[in-house]
Amino acid sequence: MSKQDSDLVFLPLGGTGEIGMNCNLYGYGKKGKRDWIMVDLGVTFGKANDPGIDLITPDTSFIEGHAKSLHGILLTHGHEDHIGALAHLWPRLKCPVYATPFTAELVKGKLAEVGLLDVVPLHIIDTDGHVSLGPFEIDYICLTHSIAEPSALAIRCGEARVLHTGDWKIDPDPVIGRLTEEARLSAFGDEGIDAIICDSTNVLSPGRSGSEADVGAALQDVVKASSGRVIITTFASNVARLTSIAQAAVASDRHLCLAGRGMHKIYQAARKTGYLTQFPELVEEADAGYLPPEKLLICCTGSQGESRAALGRMASGTHPHLSLEAGDKVIFSSKMIPGNEAEIMGMQNQLAALDVEIVLPNGKDLHVSGHPCIDELKDMYQWARPRIAVPVHGEHRHLMAHAELAKQLQVPEPVRIHNGDMLRIWPGAAEVIDVVPHGRFYIDGNVILDNKALPVKERRNLAHNGVVFVAVPVDAADRLAGVPSVELVGMPQDDGAVRLADWALDAVERAIPSNGRLTPEKATTSMRNGIRREMARRWGKKPAVVVSFVRV
Amino acid sequence: MSKQDSDLVFLPLGGTGEIGMNCNLYGYGKKGKRDWIMVDLGVTFGKANDPGIDLITPDTSFIEGHAKSLHGILLTHGHEDHIGALAHLWPRLKCPVYATPFTAELVKGKLAEVGLLDVVPLHIIDTDGHVSLGPFEIDYICLTHSIAEPSALAIRCGEARVLHTGDWKIDPDPVIGRLTEEARLSAFGDEGIDAIICDSTNVLSPGRSGSEADVGAALQDVVKASSGRVIITTFASNVARLTSIAQAAVASDRHLCLAGRGMHKIYQAARKTGYLTQFPELVEEADAGYLPPEKLLICCTGSQGESRAALGRMASGTHPHLSLEAGDKVIFSSKMIPGNEAEIMGMQNQLAALDVEIVLPNGKDLHVSGHPCIDELKDMYQWARPRIAVPVHGEHRHLMAHAELAKQLQVPEPVRIHNGDMLRIWPGAAEVIDVVPHGRFYIDGNVILDNKALPVKERRNLAHNGVVFVAVPVDAADRLAGVPSVELVGMPQDDGAVRLADWALDAVERAIPSNGRLTPEKATTSMRNGIRREMARRWGKKPAVVVSFVRV
Repeated sequence: MSKQDSDLVFLPLGGTGEIGMNCNLYGYGKKGKRDWIMVDLGVTFGKANDPGIDLITPDTSFIEGHAKSLHGILLTHGHEDHIGALAHLWPRLKCPVYATPFTAELVKGKLAEVGLLDVVPLHIIDTDGHVSLGPFEIDYICLTHSIAEPSALAIRCGEARVLHTGDWKIDPDPVIGRLTEEARLSAFGDEGIDAIICDSTNVLSPGRSGSEADVGAALQDVVKASSGRVIITTFASNVARLTSIAQAAVASDRHLCLAGRGMHKIYQAARKTGYLTQFPELVEEADAGYLPPEKLLICCTGSQGESRAALGRMASGTHPHLSLEAGDKVIFSSKMIPGNEAEIMGMQNQLAALDVEIVLPNGKDLHVSGHPCIDELKDMYQWARPRIAVPVHGEHRHLMAHAELAKQLQVPEPVRIHNGDMLRIWPGAAEVIDVVPHGRFYIDGNVILDNKALPVKERRNLAHNGVVFVAVPVDAADRLAGVPSVELVGMPQDDGAVRLADWALDAVERAIPSNGRLTPEKATTSMRNGIRREMARRWGKKPAVVVSFVRV
Repeated sequence: MSKQDSDLVFLPLGGTGEIGMNCNLYGYGKKGKRDWIMVDLGVTFGKANDPGIDLITPDTSFIEGHAKSLHGILLTHGHEDHIGALAHLWPRLKCPVYATPFTAELVKGKLAEVGLLDVVPLHIIDTDGHVSLGPFEIDYICLTHSIAEPSALAIRCGEARVLHTGDWKIDPDPVIGRLTEEARLSAFGDEGIDAIICDSTNVLSPGRSGSEADVGAALQDVVKASSGRVIITTFASNVARLTSIAQAAVASDRHLCLAGRGMHKIYQAARKTGYLTQFPELVEEADAGYLPPEKLLICCTGSQGESRAALGRMASGTHPHLSLEAGDKVIFSSKMIPGNEAEIMGMQNQLAALDVEIVLPNGKDLHVSGHPCIDELKDMYQWARPRIAVPVHGEHRHLMAHAELAKQLQVPEPVRIHNGDMLRIWPGAAEVIDVVPHGRFYIDGNVILDNKALPVKERRNLAHNGVVFVAVPVDAADRLAGVPSVELVGMPQDDGAVRLADWALDAVERAIPSNGRLTPEKATTSMRNGIRREMARRWGKKPAVVVSFVRV
């Protein structure tokens, strides 16, 4: 393969034009014979429109078809939208995985849950480590973000240079971990970067995202000024925030209690990898109730209004150990993730009914974002000075604004691409040279549904319209051989007067010829139509209808 | 009945401690023999957690038990959370209904939909009219709000005086309709008001809510500065906003097109009742596509991201007549109603993918709230000078803050009550003297489910876990008489290797004794448990299981 015929392509399978489920591919070589690496493999969370689906992943069918040429999956950091799909999809890809210690610890927990812990080759990389994968030479570069160990990847491949930022901000005092490695970013920029693949989340926000250290100071002020129990809810994965909360407990002479499974999981992972070493001794949830309110600080999960998380249980009075009362204070050191507002406000309503004081972050005092605002993006572009800017990690309006910003910053080739677009970034001008299959996989229980997802469609219908089951006994000659039965699920008992089951049975009987001879296909259609017509009249809805002919 | 033994009670059945479905009762007389009136009868919209339920109403079973003593339902204004349940629940109450002309026009449309137009005695009241109902003398007082003809009710009953505000703000220039009748409110205050029952929606917001006239001016500026198509989405019921949008069309030399069923419905109702008389000639949706983009202004439904509303269809490219392109501008002259954020942002993402510019209201320029902020509440309390303040129309944190504000304003008795609390407001000190049944009814198709709502629970389960239907043919002696069948709905085909239906059938067969003699109850339990165990193992979920024994 001569160098002349090779190219380097970037191919996002998720996260570009949508929120969550980041998955990015880099391919180097000749068309059809490329070597591949994957950067991140995240999930997004199922919404009401996908009933029964907790997790959604990118459709990886394209790279499954090239799994033998996939040299490895590199993880930039441990957030769910970057690592959450790995345990589910790895069996389809079967390649080595690379992560820094803290990220690797989170990944191990997920692999253990599905019995893959000893199966997946998971390589732990220093936060400024190096990986060689086929034609790719990759350096991890330390950034700051809202989790421990966020990394950019400096990718060298032949003459091509790519900076993949992952998620980042520029936090001058991140409380834990290292500062942004400006010098290495600038040095990589000096080599001549072909393309930056960059976080777009906060491109609509001017200024800077703020610092974890400032949040820590503000939290301390609020806790010190409190007299009852103080509950702080935040994203468990923000190890810096946990550190600040622990410091607030110490400074206000309160005992710290961690509540919620996610909180304990992160605490363990952080301790194992050298974080939270200065942490005060913790009070068990079961013991916290015995402490005077003014001596307790609870740090808990549930900031998004999840009814089964620790805060949700406290709000509804169903937590086995922790209960709240008038005079207590709940601090939301978190943002509302779009889509969760109704749940969050419902939980806040429950807390208010208990006369608990609710403290929300105003501006940037009690919570800061982990993503770069415009001034931080300007810094990054000054360090990197790329030829091509590829906005990722955002919805279309973010990508649009990010491309516009890159143009203002005199990047020669700002491009807007979508999931599935194969973008050549070297050699020559950036160009979409192919569009590959892309979309979504649905994790249904432990089965992965492809993007057609029939069961989801069926369940959506069941959820709205219920279902009628008809069982018709027939003999070998398809003659009625007994009494048909109907079962209604997810439907009202009656229309206010008559049982809906009776109306349904009438419709079934009307579909049976007087001589009892049935043509199963015809009878099915006629029963289904009859039942749906009758139900529309009596109930106002058309249920799903399933007809079984039972052979006697 | 001697006056001495009588009391006046206030009893909210909805809207107090929650958003939506306002329903308030006033009762006068002796315990068990009271005369009643109802103020408003609204809905709230079903959420994802109530699949198949579009509308939820207050549980009115208490007043159904006293329907003969219910003299009438008085409507304060035409928003869904105040009138939306009337057409559904009226058959259980069967009493006269009172409304001002515009509100009545909206109610008529709803009654016509359910065939009650000529059945319900609907009395049209002047916007400053009077109604006598049993012991109650009620005066309508004009307010301002985000809909035409919002009214407060001044209720006189024996010596007792109550001001029921309904929804209101103080808009110095409401574009349409009359100004707030300050003088009448003050004069009623001079009589000595026992209790104010007052809107709490914006009690957490300082200052004033702003004016419709200012929104009109701001919209005009944005439209004039646009070169492509301009689409403004807003709440259809805001007749003042429609007026401002029409003025913006005229001022910018654009033709106005109304898009969406709700928009046309309100337009017709407003025209019929004397509003929108200065409206420009409208362009039909079917013709709007032929106009040059810079000559068109579309005013449409869909501000909440509803996929099937006009804007949702334009965003997804499925509107039969209207399509958008780069250079067009969509203005959201609306707020995000909590719970709709994900849908709205999803739609905005679709619009951004089309390169359409999105303009959101910043602060109060392109949208104002219809509810009173703190300074407006202070004005109202100054006019009314009530003895008792009862915060309603808000979640618990609003009621809490509102009671606190009333205390600061030196109201002697600020009280916090919940739905179902029967509050004596005269004679003597305010006191909760009873708690009556309260809760929610679910409108399922055209059937009203009580608050146990079994079908909703079943559908929630179907939506997550699907259903297996088993049909077992048996003879008169409960012996197996043929081949059992299984049907799976809302479940994956297979576990990656074997059909789930085969696993289910195995479980059914294992539950049948070798001699074929079945005990239906025992067999049902054993089949259900067997199938659920098997599915948990293969799929990771436990579906609902329905077993029918079909008699041959």
